[in-house]
Amino acid sequence: MTAFDALGHLLGPRFSTTLAARKQNAGNEAHYDEVLPDAVAFPESTEEVAEIVRICAAHGVPIVAFGTGTSLEGQHLAVNGGISLDFSRMDKVLEVHAEDMNVVVQPGVTRKQLNEELRATGLFFPVDPGADASLGGMAATRASGTTAVRYGTMRENVLALEAVMADGSVIRTGSEARKSSAGYDLTHLLVGSEGTLGLITELTLKLHGQPEAVAAATCRFDDVAAAVDCVILTIQSGIPMARIELVDEMMVRGFNLHSGTTMPEKPHLFLEFHGAPDAVREQVSSFREIASDAGAQGWQEAETTEARTALWSLRHGALPAIGALDPRPGKRTYSTDVCVPISQLAEAIAAARAEAETRALTCTIVGHVGDGNFHCGLRFDPADPAEIAEVLAFSGALAKVALRLGGTVTGEHGIGLGKQGYMDAEHGAAVAIMRRVKTAFDPQAILNPGKLLPPES
Amino acid sequence: MTAFDALGHLLGPRFSTTLAARKQNAGNEAHYDEVLPDAVAFPESTEEVAEIVRICAAHGVPIVAFGTGTSLEGQHLAVNGGISLDFSRMDKVLEVHAEDMNVVVQPGVTRKQLNEELRATGLFFPVDPGADASLGGMAATRASGTTAVRYGTMRENVLALEAVMADGSVIRTGSEARKSSAGYDLTHLLVGSEGTLGLITELTLKLHGQPEAVAAATCRFDDVAAAVDCVILTIQSGIPMARIELVDEMMVRGFNLHSGTTMPEKPHLFLEFHGAPDAVREQVSSFREIASDAGAQGWQEAETTEARTALWSLRHGALPAIGALDPRPGKRTYSTDVCVPISQLAEAIAAARAEAETRALTCTIVGHVGDGNFHCGLRFDPADPAEIAEVLAFSGALAKVALRLGGTVTGEHGIGLGKQGYMDAEHGAAVAIMRRVKTAFDPQAILNPGKLLPPES
Repeated sequence: MTAFDALGHLLGPRFSTTLAARKQNAGNEAHYDEVLPDAVAFPESTEEVAEIVRICAAHGVPIVAFGTGTSLEGQHLAVNGGISLDFSRMDKVLEVHAEDMNVVVQPGVTRKQLNEELRATGLFFPVDPGADASLGGMAATRASGTTAVRYGTMRENVLALEAVMADGSVIRTGSEARKSSAGYDLTHLLVGSEGTLGLITELTLKLHGQPEAVAAATCRFDDVAAAVDCVILTIQSGIPMARIELVDEMMVRGFNLHSGTTMPEKPHLFLEFHGAPDAVREQVSSFREIASDAGAQGWQEAETTEARTALWSLRHGALPAIGALDPRPGKRTYSTDVCVPISQLAEAIAAARAEAETRALTCTIVGHVGDGNFHCGLRFDPADPAEIAEVLAFSGALAKVALRLGGTVTGEHGIGLGKQGYMDAEHGAAVAIMRRVKTAFDPQAILNPGKLLPPES
Repeated sequence: MTAFDALGHLLGPRFSTTLAARKQNAGNEAHYDEVLPDAVAFPESTEEVAEIVRICAAHGVPIVAFGTGTSLEGQHLAVNGGISLDFSRMDKVLEVHAEDMNVVVQPGVTRKQLNEELRATGLFFPVDPGADASLGGMAATRASGTTAVRYGTMRENVLALEAVMADGSVIRTGSEARKSSAGYDLTHLLVGSEGTLGLITELTLKLHGQPEAVAAATCRFDDVAAAVDCVILTIQSGIPMARIELVDEMMVRGFNLHSGTTMPEKPHLFLEFHGAPDAVREQVSSFREIASDAGAQGWQEAETTEARTALWSLRHGALPAIGALDPRPGKRTYSTDVCVPISQLAEAIAAARAEAETRALTCTIVGHVGDGNFHCGLRFDPADPAEIAEVLAFSGALAKVALRLGGTVTGEHGIGLGKQGYMDAEHGAAVAIMRRVKTAFDPQAILNPGKLLPPES
């Protein structure tokens, strides 16, 4: 029996080799070409995932996990063939432990779905990468986003995991206790492993209390350097910002074009404050003092829930708004993702802007600047090799800057296909150790082959 | 040339096989027998550590890292012989990055030494296990303590590491950026690995701003159940407690005997609040409302820095105070370390007290209860096998309770020698994966052999 016969036997209509099904999981929101998997499997339980892995292991068939396909470095693309293991049918919130402020979910649950289901509990899951990604995918890429400055990334918010190993065995890592010193931290090893060490089949996630009071606001600065100074001083002052996002003047132009807003085309900070009422008032007042010293103008507070939602919808609409700056049909957007120590943020952003200017590229900047993480958005024509090369050269130059400044080539998008070339420069001798870890977990290299680790030279 | 000849050649007088030197690193503050290493090495640099490892690897000599010897599960004892690698001469604070709120230290720096050196910067390192442990040791055992409820454990506060691998190669993990999605999280794999995967030679640690305002207080309850209820409600209410420590009536009796205090012999909570001034006032007022509903009495605020220091000195003096409850000469103290989801805390503590009563053991309870972590302190006579067996049986019964309640057998002391017997029960199939990780890092098993992983059956 072939692997596909066995999989068809196991899953019936939930295993498909049709072009339509394969095409569904072949695209991406980033700059990569479409890649068709050989087949798509839709398991409904951990046991089915384990059995799929056993079958694939016996036949040496690659397995690539698929959540919502919103990863930005091609993590979900089956570049070495094999099956796309689609978690969309494992989308149940299994247990809400309100007293312990945690929740047990299947990997296909998306973050918005989770927060909908949590609404009545007074709790929420804070990690917000913008896209309505699956929580399994977010864990696998160590995602973060706008609220990481306050609540941490997936690294800080995954308490425990269930995962299927490359031989089909099922392990549990971590526990529901808030901390433990019992043995190797396999939870954190799986978080960020991009499906190359195991397949996450269940997650226990930390929840946080919905803040009693929330304030959101924007303000603008004459130049990016002033805005960044304000951010650095704010973080250093210890104000527990819930969100502090930089949007440069080009990005504001994109918002105005795309959403019909009429914001002054200046660098802006988008802000949110969470806490008890007095604490929030105190945070806002401390921030405004720092911001005013840094030259902030045009303070606009979003007074209602609706106004706040509108503010963050605008911010989360950055990707289409970048498109509005260069609406030639067929064009796509490339997003960089470096993250640097906050003291180096002004220099990193200045270097990015200088590099874009040298190359005459239209470049937007948005950033989770409280973490030192920012994205340059560049439009390019995927049919024009010269434009692709130019964008990648820009990205490479920026990666070098980030490493020189003590940072990382990727704050939250992951390595996937596109950042492997920087692994040696970022990690040096540690790459050899990562290879040993990979071999220990997946000696046959059937789990998402071709990702994260660069090919051995 | 023998390994010891080579080590003597490398280190001169900083390599010693004298009984005096060996005895220095043979003891422990817990219940383990003295274990003499075959020799002690005092490296002064990463390069020396790497060379020591190369020599030991060539000769198959075990290497056991030694910080301050304050680990509580025998992690630093050379039970399979070999050398004690003593980091006391690698005790430099290398770089303070005040702007980025991090610091680079050698592993022999102790937490108090670090905070002394940071005093003028307005920053501090919050992890406080009580003992003035070395930071390398704290990372290796994933230590935490009284402030973890607010600031996290070593897991959350180590940004990056330098470590020497079992073959003498030197790797760097992580970066100074606050977050990264670049590859496998080797930092978290080394944190908590108890010297079995690599030797930490440098740590980059997160710092926090010294809080603008601090309030500390104690209050008492009629029974432990009421105190625990108050803790659970406080955590669930989202008050960002800096410290919330339970001390039961027996422990209070120990304090009174040991320190001459005259506290009512009732369960107490020891509390600390950090933040901006209004925020702290608001936290205290919210807490007092919850506590009063839970039946708290005798609110005593420590108004001055001196009073605050006295309060926490008392709390940190738990170990000698337990001794005061049973001062027979030669007796020692055993400390349990389970951690459970906070909703299970009342049940876990009740089970511990019932078990102690059944066994007619004098048992104190102190706990980092905001995390669900508590310690039972039991006195025993190390010369009496029956007393040892009784204490270990108590510990085993409590470990089972913790696992049944979804917790862990060790919140912060680690596995070391004493908790290996619970690894299978806590981790199941994941232990096999941990073994593969160990083999991938240390195929010769020269790094702290006999620790963390149970012997293969």
